[in-house]
Amino acid sequence: MSRITCPVLKNKVTSAEEAAQFINDGDVVGMSGFTGAGYPKAVPTALAERAKEAHGRGEEFGIKLLTGASTAPEADGVLAEAGALKFRMPFQSDPNLRKSINTGETEYVDAHLSHSAQQTWFGFYGDVKVAVVEVSAILPNGLLVPSSAVGNNKTWLDLADKVIIEVNDWHPREYEGFHDVYYGTKLPPQRRPIQLLEPTQRIGDPYLRVDSDKVVAVVETSAPDRNAPFKSPDEGSKAMASHVVDFLRHEITAGRLPESLLPLQSGVGNVANAVMAEFAHSEFEGLTAYTEVIQDGMLDLIDTGKLTAVSATSFCLSAERATEFNENIEAYKGRILLRTQEISNHPEVVRRLGIIAINGMVEADIYGNVNSTHVMGSSIINGIGGSGDFARNAFLNFFVSPSVAKGGAISSIVPFASHVDHTEHDVHVVVTEQGIADLRGLSPAARAKKIINNCAHPDFRDRLQDYFDRASAANPNGRHTPHLLSEALSWHENFQANGQM
Amino acid sequence: MSRITCPVLKNKVTSAEEAAQFINDGDVVGMSGFTGAGYPKAVPTALAERAKEAHGRGEEFGIKLLTGASTAPEADGVLAEAGALKFRMPFQSDPNLRKSINTGETEYVDAHLSHSAQQTWFGFYGDVKVAVVEVSAILPNGLLVPSSAVGNNKTWLDLADKVIIEVNDWHPREYEGFHDVYYGTKLPPQRRPIQLLEPTQRIGDPYLRVDSDKVVAVVETSAPDRNAPFKSPDEGSKAMASHVVDFLRHEITAGRLPESLLPLQSGVGNVANAVMAEFAHSEFEGLTAYTEVIQDGMLDLIDTGKLTAVSATSFCLSAERATEFNENIEAYKGRILLRTQEISNHPEVVRRLGIIAINGMVEADIYGNVNSTHVMGSSIINGIGGSGDFARNAFLNFFVSPSVAKGGAISSIVPFASHVDHTEHDVHVVVTEQGIADLRGLSPAARAKKIINNCAHPDFRDRLQDYFDRASAANPNGRHTPHLLSEALSWHENFQANGQM
Repeated sequence: MSRITCPVLKNKVTSAEEAAQFINDGDVVGMSGFTGAGYPKAVPTALAERAKEAHGRGEEFGIKLLTGASTAPEADGVLAEAGALKFRMPFQSDPNLRKSINTGETEYVDAHLSHSAQQTWFGFYGDVKVAVVEVSAILPNGLLVPSSAVGNNKTWLDLADKVIIEVNDWHPREYEGFHDVYYGTKLPPQRRPIQLLEPTQRIGDPYLRVDSDKVVAVVETSAPDRNAPFKSPDEGSKAMASHVVDFLRHEITAGRLPESLLPLQSGVGNVANAVMAEFAHSEFEGLTAYTEVIQDGMLDLIDTGKLTAVSATSFCLSAERATEFNENIEAYKGRILLRTQEISNHPEVVRRLGIIAINGMVEADIYGNVNSTHVMGSSIINGIGGSGDFARNAFLNFFVSPSVAKGGAISSIVPFASHVDHTEHDVHVVVTEQGIADLRGLSPAARAKKIINNCAHPDFRDRLQDYFDRASAANPNGRHTPHLLSEALSWHENFQANGQM
Repeated sequence: MSRITCPVLKNKVTSAEEAAQFINDGDVVGMSGFTGAGYPKAVPTALAERAKEAHGRGEEFGIKLLTGASTAPEADGVLAEAGALKFRMPFQSDPNLRKSINTGETEYVDAHLSHSAQQTWFGFYGDVKVAVVEVSAILPNGLLVPSSAVGNNKTWLDLADKVIIEVNDWHPREYEGFHDVYYGTKLPPQRRPIQLLEPTQRIGDPYLRVDSDKVVAVVETSAPDRNAPFKSPDEGSKAMASHVVDFLRHEITAGRLPESLLPLQSGVGNVANAVMAEFAHSEFEGLTAYTEVIQDGMLDLIDTGKLTAVSATSFCLSAERATEFNENIEAYKGRILLRTQEISNHPEVVRRLGIIAINGMVEADIYGNVNSTHVMGSSIINGIGGSGDFARNAFLNFFVSPSVAKGGAISSIVPFASHVDHTEHDVHVVVTEQGIADLRGLSPAARAKKIINNCAHPDFRDRLQDYFDRASAANPNGRHTPHLLSEALSWHENFQANGQM
């Protein structure tokens, strides 16, 4: 049975190539897609072809692309490769796009994911000309059933002059009822409290709305999400996960956390999966999550019964786990709710619920400033994502990284962060496979002691301590955050010059 | 008539010296006080004497001091001078205390002001042993009428084992009704939405509550607040204020702000006063403020009728203006509400109301990272205060500073910030007397162009552009945020070595 049961929109079914004709050079385009899920599967490729043809004719052709977060080779990838992205906001992780940003061809704005929708409403990025949004079905009355990610889709559909809908039947038809699209956001001074008290409480509608007059094309697709391969957690990830879970036990014993903890948020990656695996083999019961992305480990934890309720904005599953999920989707109904990223990451809700936030990092300096985005100060990797949304307002936050990278050439604990995404005012706990540094309530100098002793790799520990000692000695009136400015970034310089910090 | 009409608490009236005996070495002490208002006037001096005597006997004596924000020479000052502060949280501005922090004698934690109460509840700073809180009156039923600052007083009174109350009759008895103490905060998972929709809406009680069994001493005082001298805005401040107000006009014209703007927040200082003066001579009507501190300029703006409603947590007035206010306090009733700093600075409320945040800074780098706290990387000045609470969730934020300091030896626009308190993800508009850089929706490289051209002093502009150009050339694959790591902090090094950037 067709996924498109609305007669008005059924009449607008066309090819991706025809749909792509509605997008013009210089347009601000809002596309669906969050962490490799729910992105449009066909129109971006057709658009990339259109751009290449225009470039072949010597014409300019590029768009300003806004999304939920990262997409996939078939979206960000093909468009970047075609040189069709003049501008991109927010989070991305595609190799072609990253290259285009770092060579200066694509202008990139690394906004907090909870800020991206409101900034567009506020007018930061100009008028949204076209929305390209993937859904799993269109109901007879024209309501849209979202697919594997909600992201910023509500905002793109509301703001765009023209709407292109991709209806993807790879997604199970049973997605209906898994979403909660909050239609209560307004511009100040009309804003009201978000009356959300529990992770999977419904505050919105299960459907996205669209003005059918704005719909210029509907494209049918049948392609899977990106679904990155799953890697079993390595020893380092297991060690970090074990440190995190042990620390949470310690907090319960100290009376600072309830036995079923508080809602968990975890970033994307192996450590996040390892933490979920650690919970799966633990004594914990009645856990909940209020997070961005649902990975394999979180589904596994639901399967054990230990995780009872998960709010997120998208999935990020391995191919096998996605197939399993799609086949058994009914088993997860009522336990998973996908929200707009404005709400999944909203500071108001994050602070109220008292999130326990677990996010990766690139490096931390000895005083607890965290770099989540840049390599050696200049090159962006992916972006800040939701780490700032969650960490800043969390009840408790963890920043995790292996203590070394590139076979020991790089220390993730450095004298001075080469870029700061999370300041010393905001970082609670730093974790490496070496151990854990609880920075809460400590001055910068006291934090340095803990980070160096507990988190730095032994190969770098003495040099970090030596830096701190000499910085203290050299700054008799600057011992709050003592630095030697001539050496502060020398570890990064060493790596650039010699391939070794 | 006595300010203490509660018979139970009247019985506990004693001297500051007797009261100070209840405070012991190592105690965590929560004191009132916010930006030189509402701090205890007598007990800290008696406590400092006690510490000096103990030190004279070769005994250790020091406390862990938590406050609202900065206090005064009679509180932070005497205690730091006596070597009685082992630890201090959050914002401070006393020269003796600053010295003690920067020599490493006092451990200092620079928490966001909206985080300071909840972090104490969460257990970051240990158990609060004693609260020392100034009020303006005690009612027959034991309820406390706050004085010129509410700050964290609710939290200290709730958490402390022992309470010392200072009743200060310098404050007008008519303060009753000027305060709104929210008793709805809880620890997660019991938190509920803060149902605040307008700056001066009441959501709490006009009084502070205290368990009279915990009150160990009541001390009567009659001393004025610190009341820093008022300086007329200089030319630079006037220029910055004019840039800010013109920019707001531009935003109204562009349809991005309503004609009466959105609630204003402004940090403490001359620029803030100058902005208020600029508004006073403008066409604006029906303005409101949701801020931390009420300065002279804001009272003046109320007097003009242009500012109709102000929410804050404290005053920071000149001596003359404080006298005038105290004499005419009834004229301000219903137009000013003082809240706990947890609510005055709450991210939930700041985002909902859509605050326009105007805060000072020490320096900004060319990519829009802002340093608000440190000199040359190592020495703390005052602290982050509420700038992060407001800027992060603001509808629109401004960071303002003269383009140069120390007679031109220091540029406030630098290649690389020597400390980062507000990241590139959070800074909207940078302002100097030279001009204004609107960074919204721009990539780091695009921001650099605006900051260098519009904000940097002409004496430094070419060198900044040269840094950017060479950094771009040197990083063909790092043009998102191009840096030359060996030069990034060289301007600060130059200043340290030669007294000139």
